[in-house]
Amino acid sequence: MEDSLLLDHPVAGTLDDVLGFELLEASADGARARFQVRDRVCQPAGIVHGGAYAALAESMVSITTNALVAEDGQGALGQANNTSFLRPVNEGFVSAEAHPRHRGRATWVWDVEFVDDNGRLCAVSRVTLALRPAQGG
Amino acid sequence: MEDSLLLDHPVAGTLDDVLGFELLEASADGARARFQVRDRVCQPAGIVHGGAYAALAESMVSITTNALVAEDGQGALGQANNTSFLRPVNEGFVSAEAHPRHRGRATWVWDVEFVDDNGRLCAVSRVTLALRPAQGG
Amino acid sequence: MEDSLLLDHPVAGTLDDVLGFELLEASADGARARFQVRDRVCQPAGIVHGGAYAALAESMVSITTNALVAEDGQGALGQANNTSFLRPVNEGFVSAEAHPRHRGRATWVWDVEFVDDNGRLCAVSRVTLALRPAQGG
Amino acid sequence: MEDSLLLDHPVAGTLDDVLGFELLEASADGARARFQVRDRVCQPAGIVHGGAYAALAESMVSITTNALVAEDGQGALGQANNTSFLRPVNEGFVSAEAHPRHRGRATWVWDVEFVDDNGRLCAVSRVTLALRPAQGG
Repeated sequence: MEDSLLLDHPVAGTLDDVLGFELLEASADGARARFQVRDRVCQPAGIVHGGAYAALAESMVSITTNALVAEDGQGALGQANNTSFLRPVNEGFVSAEAHPRHRGRATWVWDVEFVDDNGRLCAVSRVTLALRPAQGG
Repeated sequence: MEDSLLLDHPVAGTLDDVLGFELLEASADGARARFQVRDRVCQPAGIVHGGAYAALAESMVSITTNALVAEDGQGALGQANNTSFLRPVNEGFVSAEAHPRHRGRATWVWDVEFVDDNGRLCAVSRVTLALRPAQGG
Repeated sequence: MEDSLLLDHPVAGTLDDVLGFELLEASADGARARFQVRDRVCQPAGIVHGGAYAALAESMVSITTNALVAEDGQGALGQANNTSFLRPVNEGFVSAEAHPRHRGRATWVWDVEFVDDNGRLCAVSRVTLALRPAQGG
Repeated sequence: MEDSLLLDHPVAGTLDDVLGFELLEASADGARARFQVRDRVCQPAGIVHGGAYAALAESMVSITTNALVAEDGQGALGQANNTSFLRPVNEGFVSAEAHPRHRGRATWVWDVEFVDDNGRLCAVSRVTLALRPAQGG
């Protein structure tokens, strides 16, 4: 997977950019990403918004999978995102690690774990992606 | 539920504000919300980011539930968000309707449906909230 | 859809038979099924086993979808089953209604609701099926 | 945790007994269980029924959690069971390993992995349990 993947992220103005997502690593073995806890990833009470976890999981997994299956002429589209919130976070960084659980012909399944700056697990996501022949050229 | 709930949304700088979420209605019967398809809710390919659906579901359901249980001295915290993506959207508005499926003493469960401007279902979320005694005062 | 679908259910010795599942209706509009609360669908405390809800949802949705897509030379295989348990049941019947939420080319999504004899919602399932060209002949 | 936990399982006539579930290990570190692929855990095509995975996950996790929290006067009740089916199995044994991901005061979350006799991952479950003061005495 090319380093340009990390350099090109985030595309200006997209959700990842607006929310401050940083993609740190992306390979066949997994992916790492994070965001800083600022207002823009929080709900009004100053706690990280549940949607921020779900969105980061979706981004890192989707980007990594697409990069991996592109050489086979495939593309990956998010199909389901199940996120459980375990511990509220209100400062520092939220760091995420994603690992592929299943790489089938039609479907990939990833697990993503989110920890705070003390390494405490604060959320987990399971993301299912559907593989399809890539469009365009 | 007071109209101020809608007037106060979104709080400046929070995720809901940054992503352009609009809360249109919030009552014990359900909630309605929407966002316009702009870069900030999209991934690089110009399709609505899966995390945008999950985040809006989380917001509208959490805000509404908190408003409803506040008089009982309770607060609601997101526990799980399961979102399925059914149809990619790349223009117009994404409109959401949420309906409570279960209002228990310890847990509330909501279903949220997202449609595009042609009324076609593009995503569904099931959100589980945990009720706890409200903090502070 | 042929009535034989209902007559042939359950196949002797299979899970549906062993757990006492009854398929009552199956059409493009939805499906209805039920089971009686007996030891075989319960955990040791005499409460309906969470797996019984998940299993009935899976069965009724899978059977119905397969019957519906068979004329197109397709088959459906369960991909994900998300079940939430809302209220414990320890007697009478558990009755289920399933409605299709999405009928895509590659994926179908169904919602299933379970009620007790007083019509109280006791569980909800969301089942995702993957469509594939049917095997064999 | 007492060995009697394993000896007492399954209780005659309950779902675990009828489906042939075997609990092999249960401790604070995790649980192991399995079932043999026979008609009673299959759907009519001879493939393991999706509900069998969901049910075994629910059983092993619920039994283990209840044993662990009993000394604190707590009981655990299944709240949500999300199971993804990755590979069809039609013979041998399905073996399951469960690991706790989160042990909160109000909620526990477990991950369960299912493999066939060749060690291939065939399903994964995420089970959420709600903790409550134990009843009776």
